[in-house]
Amino acid sequence: MDKQKALSIVKDKLTNRRFTHTIGVMETAVRLAEQYGADVKKAELAAIFHDVAKCMPIIELKEIMEKNQFSLELLQHNKELWHAPVGAFLTKHEYGIDDEDVLQAITYHTSGHEEMSLLDKVIYVADYIEPNRQFPGVEEARKLADLDLNQALLYALKNTITYLIEKEQSVYPLTVQTYNSILKQVKS
Amino acid sequence: MDKQKALSIVKDKLTNRRFTHTIGVMETAVRLAEQYGADVKKAELAAIFHDVAKCMPIIELKEIMEKNQFSLELLQHNKELWHAPVGAFLTKHEYGIDDEDVLQAITYHTSGHEEMSLLDKVIYVADYIEPNRQFPGVEEARKLADLDLNQALLYALKNTITYLIEKEQSVYPLTVQTYNSILKQVKS
Repeated sequence: MDKQKALSIVKDKLTNRRFTHTIGVMETAVRLAEQYGADVKKAELAAIFHDVAKCMPIIELKEIMEKNQFSLELLQHNKELWHAPVGAFLTKHEYGIDDEDVLQAITYHTSGHEEMSLLDKVIYVADYIEPNRQFPGVEEARKLADLDLNQALLYALKNTITYLIEKEQSVYPLTVQTYNSILKQVKS
Repeated sequence: MDKQKALSIVKDKLTNRRFTHTIGVMETAVRLAEQYGADVKKAELAAIFHDVAKCMPIIELKEIMEKNQFSLELLQHNKELWHAPVGAFLTKHEYGIDDEDVLQAITYHTSGHEEMSLLDKVIYVADYIEPNRQFPGVEEARKLADLDLNQALLYALKNTITYLIEKEQSVYPLTVQTYNSILKQVKS
């Protein structure tokens, strides 16, 4: 699917603010893909669709998950995680994109997973640092992303887990497994 | 087994400093058990044996784990966790204590687990707050333990996970599952 078609699809599904974020992720993902040698076209497509389900009502996300045998564990955890795998599902079944690398990057852009590909990492980090993001530490994450993708990813995971714990919110175990896995990669 | 016999066994296995800690955990566990209605004798026994394997060489801990089919996942994680299940194993097979409640409390005194019993919680918190402990936040944990055992446990789990992440050490997924479980209990 070409870029303009993809953008016009997601524009319809998102608020203006979320669409602006998506453009930021797309531009950042393309830049990171070029820098670190990931597939630029796949990065662009995954970035465009990564939040396609973000503005859907929770009840609809839940319905799709239940009807299509998504993992029960996910249903028991933070709703903030749901839009990622549902987004991948819609990207495949509604919009006809069946590139497994792209779908995987969308699926895991919020939680991460233990064996992240370069493309998965590019999308995760791009989502974290795109220019519209404003939160304590984002500048440090941007600097790290210029130097070392794994270091930037580790920083994002550390911040995310620490933030959830400070706010007394549940932590998805897969995110901790991702942290352990990236920590190992950074240290080796 | 009576208290003096149990103490004389573990005294032989521990450094003086670690034995002093064990006495502190024992006294604290008895007090918490009385306060929260756990079995006081079981709490005393679990506390006495909780660190029985703490001063063993890592290589011996590993050998015991490998010979006795402990979970591979545990072997891949922080060595600091190993003394707990090995301690329970020795408490049973070397010292003849077969009370499953006591053995469970020893097994999980460092990691926690998703369905902690009252006794498990008493031992975990006693280990965290006993009078010889000195670390930022221990006073707050002691205050919470006077008021609400689950709140004290949640505080300890939050601190532990945050500390590991700050120090860029791996986090045992079971500890995060314990955090999620106790958070749910505190919030409900």
